[in-house]
Amino acid sequence: MKPVIDGLEPPYYAVIFTSIRTDLEDAYDDTDQRLAKLVADQPGFLGFESARQEVGITVSYWSSLDAIADWRNQPEHRAAWQRGKEWYASYRVRICRVEREYGF
Amino acid sequence: MKPVIDGLEPPYYAVIFTSIRTDLEDAYDDTDQRLAKLVADQPGFLGFESARQEVGITVSYWSSLDAIADWRNQPEHRAAWQRGKEWYASYRVRICRVEREYGF
Repeated sequence: MKPVIDGLEPPYYAVIFTSIRTDLEDAYDDTDQRLAKLVADQPGFLGFESARQEVGITVSYWSSLDAIADWRNQPEHRAAWQRGKEWYASYRVRICRVEREYGF
Repeated sequence: MKPVIDGLEPPYYAVIFTSIRTDLEDAYDDTDQRLAKLVADQPGFLGFESARQEVGITVSYWSSLDAIADWRNQPEHRAAWQRGKEWYASYRVRICRVEREYGF
């Protein structure tokens, strides 16, 4: 069984992306998988966790605010965002500083 | 369609709870629903969003670190946590400060 992501040392940053999907499926899965591959090579990327039921939640973890900004400006990622509006009825992006964590 | 939570004004706090469930179902759903009711009356609670597929992610939003600590120490919530170890193969709790947000 895959564990949750651990071993990160605060302070670092989290981007919480919550969204409600539209019914439009066209190219969504392809883009989603392509971005998941692309982000893995992005400097400062520490990992992500994702689940969707009524609401979709993706949390990605980053070493710095600059690393988050660089990913936001990555050309293929930007292009995907241009299309994103048709996939989402609503979404919210929250940029957070992780202060502390615990778990097992 | 339910929108994502918005209208919150940074800075505020987010608790990101990620978990992998065990197969044990006993009393989980009852406790989960009871805690969802209970937290709604907790001072400083601003809302929560939750989804589970392979991993479960629940993000709750709070006005302050003190409000988070008070909820953590709430007796019924504490008692649920004592049992929690049997429901989760692994979990992680991250306390975060939301610096900024955007969306539609």
